[in-house]
Amino acid sequence: MASTVRAYAAKELGQPLEVIELKWRELPPGEVEVQVESCGICHSDLSMLHNEWGIAQYPFVGGHEVIGKIVAVGEGVEASRIGQRVGVGWSSKSCLKCQTCLSGDHNLCATVEGTIVGRPGGFAERVRSQAEWAIPLPEALDPLTSGPLFCGGITVFNPFLQFGVKPTDRVGIVGIGGLGHMALKFARAWGCEVVAFTSSESKRDEALELGAHSVLNSRDEAALLPHQGTFDLILSTVNVTLNWPLYIDLLAPRGRLHTVGAIAEPVSLIAFPMIGGQKSFSGSPTGSPVGIAKMLNFCGRHDIAPVTQAFPMSEINQAMAHLESGQARYRVVLDADWK
Amino acid sequence: MASTVRAYAAKELGQPLEVIELKWRELPPGEVEVQVESCGICHSDLSMLHNEWGIAQYPFVGGHEVIGKIVAVGEGVEASRIGQRVGVGWSSKSCLKCQTCLSGDHNLCATVEGTIVGRPGGFAERVRSQAEWAIPLPEALDPLTSGPLFCGGITVFNPFLQFGVKPTDRVGIVGIGGLGHMALKFARAWGCEVVAFTSSESKRDEALELGAHSVLNSRDEAALLPHQGTFDLILSTVNVTLNWPLYIDLLAPRGRLHTVGAIAEPVSLIAFPMIGGQKSFSGSPTGSPVGIAKMLNFCGRHDIAPVTQAFPMSEINQAMAHLESGQARYRVVLDADWK
Repeated sequence: MASTVRAYAAKELGQPLEVIELKWRELPPGEVEVQVESCGICHSDLSMLHNEWGIAQYPFVGGHEVIGKIVAVGEGVEASRIGQRVGVGWSSKSCLKCQTCLSGDHNLCATVEGTIVGRPGGFAERVRSQAEWAIPLPEALDPLTSGPLFCGGITVFNPFLQFGVKPTDRVGIVGIGGLGHMALKFARAWGCEVVAFTSSESKRDEALELGAHSVLNSRDEAALLPHQGTFDLILSTVNVTLNWPLYIDLLAPRGRLHTVGAIAEPVSLIAFPMIGGQKSFSGSPTGSPVGIAKMLNFCGRHDIAPVTQAFPMSEINQAMAHLESGQARYRVVLDADWK
Repeated sequence: MASTVRAYAAKELGQPLEVIELKWRELPPGEVEVQVESCGICHSDLSMLHNEWGIAQYPFVGGHEVIGKIVAVGEGVEASRIGQRVGVGWSSKSCLKCQTCLSGDHNLCATVEGTIVGRPGGFAERVRSQAEWAIPLPEALDPLTSGPLFCGGITVFNPFLQFGVKPTDRVGIVGIGGLGHMALKFARAWGCEVVAFTSSESKRDEALELGAHSVLNSRDEAALLPHQGTFDLILSTVNVTLNWPLYIDLLAPRGRLHTVGAIAEPVSLIAFPMIGGQKSFSGSPTGSPVGIAKMLNFCGRHDIAPVTQAFPMSEINQAMAHLESGQARYRVVLDADWK
C-alpha cells in the first residue's frame, strides 16, 4: 500500500533541514518498515549532507543509526516481526546470494546498500530496511541511546570479532570521540589492557572513565617511544594522517595497526619493520547482521551504551550543528517527536 | 678447544672471495658446530657482500643456507646430537628468554642474530649455531639441495603457517624467482588454487610446472582487471614497488597482500578500499625453529625441494656471479669440496 512519510531533508546542497513529504510505493518483498523512535547522528550524515563523497542525492534525508518498531512487513517476511523493536545502521540491504553474503560477510557484499545512499534514512517518521538488516534490539538496551551502536559502535566492535583479539592483548585506541569512546568501552569489557591515544589533554580523565587503563598524548611523540613494541592492536578511529612508522613501531611482534577512519591521503608504510616484526596494516567497515547481534548481546551483558546527548528530532538543525562543532560528548541522538 | 677453520671471505668491500683462516675460541655453551656439506647462496649474501644494508664486517664470510653434520656441541647441549644432520638458516641465535621467544616466535626476538651478521657463515668448513637453530634435516630430504629451504623456503612457507591460509583459498605468488618458485610449490601442496604473477613471459611454462594453475603477466594490467576481488592471499616475493592499489583491488573481501620483499620505497596504500573490503597489508621474516621443522616435514611428505644449480664451493666466485646475473633457475647451492 502506498503511503506518505514525513522526513527532515536538505532540499539542495547547503540548505538547512526541513520537513518534506515522501511518497512511498508499496513495501517491497523482503523488507520491513520501521517507525522511528530515535536516530543517532553520525559524522557520515554530515559528510553526505555536504556531499563530500559525491554520492548524495537531493532532497537528502540522513539518519542511519535508527531505533524503532517494525510496523509493516513485505512479502516473505514473518508477520510475527510486527511490533519488534529493531535497529538499522549504515547498511540496510545486501544481495544475500553472493559468496560473500553466504559466508556471513554481508557488510562486505559488493552490492551492499547504504541506508542513506540513494534513499531516505532515519531522520523521518519511518524507514525501510531489508528484514535481515533490521536487527532486534535486546530488552536490556535503551531505545533512546542505542542507535549509535548500529554504525559507530559496530565499526569499532567488529575488529575485535574479526581479528582474534584476546583478553590478554594490549590494545591502543586512537582518537577518543564518537567511535573511540565506544572502542574504549568494548576493549575494556573484552578484557584487554586498554590505552587511549588522544591529542586532547582535556579528554584524559574521560578516557580513563570510559575504560582506558592509561592515556597517552598522541602529540607528545617522546612519550610514546617507551611503548615501542608493546601493542598487539592499535585501532585508529581518526581520519587524519598519523606518523605511520611510529605507530608501526609501537606494535608488538605480530601486531596490527587497524584503521576505521577513511584517511583521504595515501597511507605510507615502510616494509622493512613490518617484515621484521610480522606486522599488519588493515581496515574494515561496520559489520554483518550477525556481528551486530553479537555486539548487542555483548553490550547487554556488559552494560555498555554509547555516551549520548539527546535532542528532539524537531531540533535537528541545532543537533547537526552541535555535532559539527566538535563539541559532542560523544554521540548525538534524536528523540523522534513527530506530532 | 680453540681451532682453525678455513672460509671463503671478502677481505674488503668489492674484493673477490678467497680462502682465509678463522681462529675460533672454544665452542660457547648452548651452541653446536656444524661441518658444512652444502650451502645455498641467497640474494641477501650478495646484499651483505656489497654492504647494501651497512652492517657487513670484513673479512666477510657469507652463507646462511647451510646443511651439514654436527661435529661438536657446547656445554649444555646433548652429546647425542653429534653426527646429526642439520640445517642452519638466516637466524642462528635468539635469547630464548623473552616473551617473544617463549611464545615460539624466536624469529621475531628483538635480539635474534643473523648467521652472517657479525660472524662467519657457511661458506666455510664449519659454522656455529645455537643448538635450537640447528634444525634436524629429515632423512627424506636431499642434503645437497635442501639448504635454500632454511632461508628462502621458510620465508615463503611461514605466511601459510601464520595467517590461517586454507586449502580452499585462491593464492597469488608475485615474482617467480628464488623465493617465488618455492612459494608456488608450497601453495600447490597446501591445496590452494595457485596463480603465478610474473613479468617474464619466459617463465610461464616453468611456473605451471612448479605448481601454478594459471599464470598472469604482471606487466599487463588490463589482463589483471578481471581478477579483481578474487585473491584471498597475494604473496609478493619481489622488492620493487608494485601498483599497490591494483593489488589491493585484486584481493577478495578479507584478503591479505603480504610482502616478504623488503621494498626500499614507502608502500603507499589507500585506506578507503582496504576499509571497504576488510583488507590487510603485512610482512614477515623467515620463521621460527618450530616453523622450519614443520616446513621440512611438509617438504618430505609432499616431495618438495628447491630447484637448484650446484657449484663446487671452490667455484664460489663463479657461483655468486651466476646468481648476480639473474640467470639462476632458481637457487644456487655450493657443494663443499674442501681438500
